[in-house]
Amino acid sequence: MTYSVEFLPHNIKVEVDDNESLIRAAMEAGVHINASCGGSGVCGKCRVMIEKGSVEGGISEHLSQKDQEKGYRLACLSEVASDIVVRVPVESQIDTGRLNVAPTSRHTAKEMYADVNELREGGLFIPPVEKIYLELEPASADNNQADVERIINHLRLNHDEHRLTMNLNLIQKIPEIIREGDFKVTATIIRPVRKDGKNRIVNIEPFDTSHRNFAIAVDIGTTTIYGQALDLHTGEVLGQHGEFNSQISYGEDVISRIIFAEKGDGLEVLHQKVIGNINTIIRKIIKKAGIGKHEVTTITLAGNSTMTQLLLKINPAFIRRDPYVPTSIMYPPFPAYEIGIDLADHTTALIYPGVSSYVGGDIIAGIMASGMYRQEKLTLYMDIGTNAEIAIGHKDWMVCTAASAGPAFEGGGVKFGMRATKGAIEDFAINPETYEPMIITVGNKKAKGICGSGLITLAAKLLETGVIDSRGKFDRSLDTDRIRKTDDIWEYVLVYKENTQIDRDIAITEPDLDNLIRAKGAMYSAALTLLEEIGLGVKDIEKIILAGGFGSYVDLASAITIGLLPELDPEKVTYLGNGSLLGCKINSLTNALRRDVMKVVNMMTNFELASTPSYMDHYMSALFLPHTELNYFPKVKKRLERLRK
Amino acid sequence: MTYSVEFLPHNIKVEVDDNESLIRAAMEAGVHINASCGGSGVCGKCRVMIEKGSVEGGISEHLSQKDQEKGYRLACLSEVASDIVVRVPVESQIDTGRLNVAPTSRHTAKEMYADVNELREGGLFIPPVEKIYLELEPASADNNQADVERIINHLRLNHDEHRLTMNLNLIQKIPEIIREGDFKVTATIIRPVRKDGKNRIVNIEPFDTSHRNFAIAVDIGTTTIYGQALDLHTGEVLGQHGEFNSQISYGEDVISRIIFAEKGDGLEVLHQKVIGNINTIIRKIIKKAGIGKHEVTTITLAGNSTMTQLLLKINPAFIRRDPYVPTSIMYPPFPAYEIGIDLADHTTALIYPGVSSYVGGDIIAGIMASGMYRQEKLTLYMDIGTNAEIAIGHKDWMVCTAASAGPAFEGGGVKFGMRATKGAIEDFAINPETYEPMIITVGNKKAKGICGSGLITLAAKLLETGVIDSRGKFDRSLDTDRIRKTDDIWEYVLVYKENTQIDRDIAITEPDLDNLIRAKGAMYSAALTLLEEIGLGVKDIEKIILAGGFGSYVDLASAITIGLLPELDPEKVTYLGNGSLLGCKINSLTNALRRDVMKVVNMMTNFELASTPSYMDHYMSALFLPHTELNYFPKVKKRLERLRK
Repeated sequence: MTYSVEFLPHNIKVEVDDNESLIRAAMEAGVHINASCGGSGVCGKCRVMIEKGSVEGGISEHLSQKDQEKGYRLACLSEVASDIVVRVPVESQIDTGRLNVAPTSRHTAKEMYADVNELREGGLFIPPVEKIYLELEPASADNNQADVERIINHLRLNHDEHRLTMNLNLIQKIPEIIREGDFKVTATIIRPVRKDGKNRIVNIEPFDTSHRNFAIAVDIGTTTIYGQALDLHTGEVLGQHGEFNSQISYGEDVISRIIFAEKGDGLEVLHQKVIGNINTIIRKIIKKAGIGKHEVTTITLAGNSTMTQLLLKINPAFIRRDPYVPTSIMYPPFPAYEIGIDLADHTTALIYPGVSSYVGGDIIAGIMASGMYRQEKLTLYMDIGTNAEIAIGHKDWMVCTAASAGPAFEGGGVKFGMRATKGAIEDFAINPETYEPMIITVGNKKAKGICGSGLITLAAKLLETGVIDSRGKFDRSLDTDRIRKTDDIWEYVLVYKENTQIDRDIAITEPDLDNLIRAKGAMYSAALTLLEEIGLGVKDIEKIILAGGFGSYVDLASAITIGLLPELDPEKVTYLGNGSLLGCKINSLTNALRRDVMKVVNMMTNFELASTPSYMDHYMSALFLPHTELNYFPKVKKRLERLRK
Repeated sequence: MTYSVEFLPHNIKVEVDDNESLIRAAMEAGVHINASCGGSGVCGKCRVMIEKGSVEGGISEHLSQKDQEKGYRLACLSEVASDIVVRVPVESQIDTGRLNVAPTSRHTAKEMYADVNELREGGLFIPPVEKIYLELEPASADNNQADVERIINHLRLNHDEHRLTMNLNLIQKIPEIIREGDFKVTATIIRPVRKDGKNRIVNIEPFDTSHRNFAIAVDIGTTTIYGQALDLHTGEVLGQHGEFNSQISYGEDVISRIIFAEKGDGLEVLHQKVIGNINTIIRKIIKKAGIGKHEVTTITLAGNSTMTQLLLKINPAFIRRDPYVPTSIMYPPFPAYEIGIDLADHTTALIYPGVSSYVGGDIIAGIMASGMYRQEKLTLYMDIGTNAEIAIGHKDWMVCTAASAGPAFEGGGVKFGMRATKGAIEDFAINPETYEPMIITVGNKKAKGICGSGLITLAAKLLETGVIDSRGKFDRSLDTDRIRKTDDIWEYVLVYKENTQIDRDIAITEPDLDNLIRAKGAMYSAALTLLEEIGLGVKDIEKIILAGGFGSYVDLASAITIGLLPELDPEKVTYLGNGSLLGCKINSLTNALRRDVMKVVNMMTNFELASTPSYMDHYMSALFLPHTELNYFPKVKKRLERLRK
């Protein structure tokens, strides 16, 4: 349900969801309200008057009984509960003049889902591992087939199943199982990738357990590992959990982990760490989901090439050494317990293939999840993170590349950088006359720091209001105390310490902005170089798919303003969220994907930016906000001119 | 080289091999010479005079210098070294009269070999596991394929190898191996059974090791386990060793072992015993062969269904329970170390498939070794042992069955029964007037007991000379001290204690003969029932193939005389030896066999004698020497009549 919110005296109206906080509505409308505490109701500065309609909450000790009766509320504590008209009082609003030239309204990308019904309708909702209930003819003098042949022949004759095999460790258990179930058993079968491959019976259980078939999907990020438990009958996610990758204590990035793995038992240590994380996640999600370990038939895992090799305990040394080769692109299915994953011995592990040392299974999983390999439209796929991973293409061809963007997008290398957890500044506006900020934090808590998406918005707003120039340097001439020099570094104070959780002023510094510019520059120039290598340009892109941890929160206009994304209609941008996890999920649901993924990997051309001479030029040109070549960003150019005139 | 030996005054001439002992030549010629000590030179009774030509040896303290100069020698110590004429003196010969009506001369079956050259010429000398040497292009910026894909693509492009896979545990080792060998490696590939199946790369070694490819073949008998080490380039047997199956201490036969396996950790105990035996054999034969464990690429194993299930640690309980089903007919290839076999982790174990609980992998191995599934001729395959295993058929169809024969053929249930080791009476003749015996032992040692083949000859000769009747009972009326009653049991003394190693008289008893009759009766009636079930008779058989431990020693005429084998021209009988071991050997040499074995198993119709009513009638009729129905054995009938008139 949505409501309209009209801000006075601006006369700006926006549509918001039921229960949206008023301060977020204002942010979206481009209406500036003083707000220093991140929306936590502490500073009391965001007083507004509800002139029509009603809100929930908004009452605080900062408001006298009389003010409350007049209709004053704190915007950050008010949730929209009807169509309303809100007046922003002068003391909060400061000045409406310039705000009416409001920049773009907030626009985050549409989210993409794995549509189970679509799979079902397409006849593709056939998981890689199926369970089939069998009522076997009991052994008798007239039919004294061996146990295993009884099962195989029954499947052949009654279920049209062929090319069946069974491993020794299962055969060892058959005599007891088949009799425990009185010749009524459920067979678990893993499908081949090639249609003429073998169907492997990996488990036989007594009685009918065919309705209990579950999968686990795991994205192994360098920083965070996420897992989902899936019901393979409904396609539903039954439980989800994320853990920080505890390899972090041995190195923040893949290179430092590779170096660690090369020494002594480093490989074993890192392998055990990630297995430990995965086992914790499994324990939590299957508990949430109410399923038993033995009911999990597959676990699909994706990670970048280094994460994949550490998972599989394969020395990653040569990933970081010229000529940068991973050990393998494809990995065969194997019993998950073999690498220490705490699941039954019949649970099959499926590993997403990669393309190269720097374009790993995680990006392939995302590309598979995006469906771009099935579409006509030319799509730009960008996985935004410490590694910039880019793919361009459609159903007939695909190219990809990867560049190191640095950790800025994940809050690294930023003085008050943090992950997008409670208290992280995620949205930001700035009064163009007073240069006073308006901030919103995750969870509406007092601020603790700045997350990646917040950083992008921050940079865009500072640029739009002229607080920084196109090189990311503060305008020292501006009349505000918030721009200052501390320890020889110029910064802009976002929140004074009394409104923070950390008892220090939270500021954004020039080095922070430098890191962000390098990160966005790497991302954008990688995309541009890749386009150029295939003889295309930004104008040819019909669709952008964003993946990565903060993709769902990033304000597209801001991302374009700083030159992270090419200037394209935001409607063409789709957000995939954790593409790697989504890819693992879809792989759990449809075996068709395993066939397609081989096609994608085989048709994918990998470009090594290091050996593409134009990349460095593009990168250098991209180290400006939005870019040296402003004509790449005509709308941003126009808006900046208008805002600053 | 062969020589002719003429015996005087009999005027019987035989051809014998170089170095054949004179007493064996006499036995073959049907010339009776007194000999009580088994050919060990101890009793000194076998004096003969060399009238022409020369022998080696034959000198003994039993011969005076003068006798020696006259040309006297002990027959048992003399080896034929030229064409000779030998006179058997009266005191040794006793009476030549009846001997000239000599029965058949000794005739053992021709032995069948696995002919590597034939395989080679047929283009079939392609082992299931091959090694291919690869000189890979080293990784470079221009060719930065992943290590695994580098190997696979090289095999694809340069060796026309397709549908290749590699397991995770190998992939884990690839980065180091490929660089240790500086991109020169040897790939070990296991072939699929179906031509469109996958070729699994199971090992990669640095440098060129392609000339070091070895296999092990193992026959797991209930009593004895034999192993051979094979060179997969030449097909040569490099080492061979046998061990008694140490499961014997938990039960002599399969049924008692199954019972043991059903209790507590019995299965584990029996499994460990056979694995222990196999590991001992491997250790010995690879030492003999001068090869390393890691150079063994396959181990093929065959055994009856119970032995197979104990090997694989699969509860055999249902093999002995109505309706007598084994757990599986076929087993997939698997890494041998997984069941505790002490070989490298890349060594593949191949298990011979069986047909039913009582027709196991050992008989299938023998049938494969015999080649009968490729031939036009109707063949009767008999594996003679504790279990009588019979197959009949040719290239278009095949039937089989099994019956319990009891342990008589292996020396069990026979008072002085023993295995065919040194001192076992293996050949026997009897003077038809004096009823004095002439015995030859294995290794020409003083007698210790009677082996299976000796027992058959013994029974035949006793029957021919009327010492026993067709029910196996001694003729109490005969004028000889050798027939006597001890502890209420009738027996015939073969060797008096002074000429034995055991300080007791060695005799054959009526219960011994009973057991033999039951064993041969089971064997013959099983064959007859099977023939009858398919509407054929003995006359339709064009070829007999004998397999089993003593098949090589058994005198065919004797086996026919007692009714163990149907009355057929001995020329049609071929001896396979240890068919199971030979089948394992051939499987190691040619992958074509693995395809054929599936065909054979699938075309094989198994008859359960227990549910074939006529079997009991046939069995009862076969409990006579040679048979109730003497017309089944017209020649034996005629000879017996002639000998006894």
